[in-house]
Amino acid sequence: MAFRHQKVESRRLLLREISQRGPLPRIDLADRTGISRATVTSITAELLRGGLIEEVPRDSTGDDTPRGRPRVDLKIAGRAHLIAGLKVADDCISLVLMDFDGADVAHHERRIEPRRYTPEELADEISQGLSGLAAKAECTLSDISGVGVGLAGVVDAGNGLVYWSPSLDRRNVPFGTVLSQHLGIAAYVDNDANLVAIAELTFGIGKDHSDFIVITIESGVGMGMVLGGQLYRGTRGCGAEFGHTKVHLDGALCRCGQRGCLEAYVADYAVVREAVSVGAVSQMASTPKAVTAVLAAAKAGDPTARTVIERAGKMFALGLANLVNIFDPERIILAGEQMQFDHLYADVVIEEMRKSIVDIDKPAPDVVVHRWDTFMWARGGAAYALEFVQDTAVEALEDA
Amino acid sequence: MAFRHQKVESRRLLLREISQRGPLPRIDLADRTGISRATVTSITAELLRGGLIEEVPRDSTGDDTPRGRPRVDLKIAGRAHLIAGLKVADDCISLVLMDFDGADVAHHERRIEPRRYTPEELADEISQGLSGLAAKAECTLSDISGVGVGLAGVVDAGNGLVYWSPSLDRRNVPFGTVLSQHLGIAAYVDNDANLVAIAELTFGIGKDHSDFIVITIESGVGMGMVLGGQLYRGTRGCGAEFGHTKVHLDGALCRCGQRGCLEAYVADYAVVREAVSVGAVSQMASTPKAVTAVLAAAKAGDPTARTVIERAGKMFALGLANLVNIFDPERIILAGEQMQFDHLYADVVIEEMRKSIVDIDKPAPDVVVHRWDTFMWARGGAAYALEFVQDTAVEALEDA
Repeated sequence: MAFRHQKVESRRLLLREISQRGPLPRIDLADRTGISRATVTSITAELLRGGLIEEVPRDSTGDDTPRGRPRVDLKIAGRAHLIAGLKVADDCISLVLMDFDGADVAHHERRIEPRRYTPEELADEISQGLSGLAAKAECTLSDISGVGVGLAGVVDAGNGLVYWSPSLDRRNVPFGTVLSQHLGIAAYVDNDANLVAIAELTFGIGKDHSDFIVITIESGVGMGMVLGGQLYRGTRGCGAEFGHTKVHLDGALCRCGQRGCLEAYVADYAVVREAVSVGAVSQMASTPKAVTAVLAAAKAGDPTARTVIERAGKMFALGLANLVNIFDPERIILAGEQMQFDHLYADVVIEEMRKSIVDIDKPAPDVVVHRWDTFMWARGGAAYALEFVQDTAVEALEDA
Repeated sequence: MAFRHQKVESRRLLLREISQRGPLPRIDLADRTGISRATVTSITAELLRGGLIEEVPRDSTGDDTPRGRPRVDLKIAGRAHLIAGLKVADDCISLVLMDFDGADVAHHERRIEPRRYTPEELADEISQGLSGLAAKAECTLSDISGVGVGLAGVVDAGNGLVYWSPSLDRRNVPFGTVLSQHLGIAAYVDNDANLVAIAELTFGIGKDHSDFIVITIESGVGMGMVLGGQLYRGTRGCGAEFGHTKVHLDGALCRCGQRGCLEAYVADYAVVREAVSVGAVSQMASTPKAVTAVLAAAKAGDPTARTVIERAGKMFALGLANLVNIFDPERIILAGEQMQFDHLYADVVIEEMRKSIVDIDKPAPDVVVHRWDTFMWARGGAAYALEFVQDTAVEALEDA
């Protein structure tokens, strides 16, 4: 039993290493994982036989091995599994289909009505979205080995439990179970910003860093933390709540019902609320349009609009500085898709942050802006589900 | 080479397990560490031969094994090594001598002039303090295997580098090296609040928790974070700077030169500054006395003094709530020795914190107040050095 467990663990470790670093030769696997060469040989044979990995000719550019000796590297067999990732936003579900090697196979977007859904209704919308995705890839739902889902809100990912989400009409929904049963596919639910952190760790600019923070800026402010190469979730599964850290005692009213939250100063609705309150812009039906109007007015030199935008930037810088003081991360990634939050990505904001961190004679952490297409959230979902699909696959392998 | 390394690792693991959980039987060691029974037997034999552990008769109370069969447990051999721990405060160095099993052997306090010291001067004060400690234990400096030192300030513990400390007259001092050379004993330097977190993890109320935060309240506010059973230090070695997180944009001036730091509202000098500025108390030579006067006035019903104290409490609650929102720890330990900060430990402050955290249908983290005697900081220093002494001891053991 212990032996079998150890074997599955070694398979898992090697598969993950090939997934993250491949294509690479067997000898590198032994060096990197500390698993003996003999064991690497036998376990990679099992992975090959199971169709999870494949051999490819070595790219010999820059290689100084003698010509004529055929060498092979190992890589993940993309066709072994299909994994879906998706993010539920206010007005749409964006979906990605990925192969076992992390390559995009298809994209799909499904418009949804911006409202709160019952768990069954939302599961149904997701199911329809997945059918659309599968159609584009000319496959069926049953070809998909796992689905990773990102929701805004507070999620206990380990239990697939959604404490609350703006997309659901009730609290404490075991949405992982609801969705798995509805789809007949294993589904894994997490907070959307956590999935962005996983995407950065897996495919993105966090790939070579073990301690970083990802801040997502949409209509709210999200955060994912990677510490020691692992996503940090907190003990109740609800850490990394950056948007509702307080930046002002008894300050501006937040949509969460509390006062002084960072979001109550930097979120789109907060910026519009301030600008409208003094007539810097007029009330509009769409918040994004109104934010654009405030930004345009600020750029055109309107002093009131500028004051509004400047305070949002200063509050954001203050929040970032607090994260640096507490975590001392290697890097902070500001990730987002919408140009409308340009003012928070500005150099002046990052400079303001640097002035507010504890001053030591070492450079402050890197702050990197990473602009994404809208499918990057979904890719994070697929990357999250991929880990589980890998684990299930190595467990299902027959022993040699 | 790899084999030798693995052996030393197993020794280290078993010694640490015995240190944390002992006395305990060999079979429990195998179960807890996953090391095979045969290996546990051979390695504990080496540890016994090296004098690092010893056998003790099993306490058979409540044990249902048959009478007459002699059973033994393993425990650390206290006499194997002596370890010193100390904390440098404004006006004194407090020191503890501990045996290899973590038991206190002697205490000592050395008054020092409250000023900034050159590295050599401070090393000399520490050396004198250690001599006083050794005299009480009727031993000499050369009997001490390692010294753990806590300093206020920002410390890169891994490199023994003090970025800055109120106890030193310059920045970027390689104080670990300076002190080791001065004493002829291996010295390990860390931020004092980190050492309190290590003490809580090793001897204190953090012993059975893997994710907790320790907040120390003295004249400043310190923090140590334990995540996944390990002290978290950040990537530049200067994380966990809670006292200088900002709680107000462009707020009160802090001693660090920045504005709006938590300390600028809750530290002793901050409370006195406010109260004096409006004449609620008169200026006094000693800050602790002045704080006591403000607290006494507040308790006696003076509305201005109350306002001052209440704001300090609210700002502290806000800072704590931010930590909970970010980390979602199992528990927060408020650790300190001085009654003068009672107002920050108050139930009303903790209640205020609970109202400012993200609201989910699960209990908020425990907040525990842990009042200590003045030597607990030093005990943390000894616990920190103990780990290195353990490592050195298992490396020095001869192979069986």
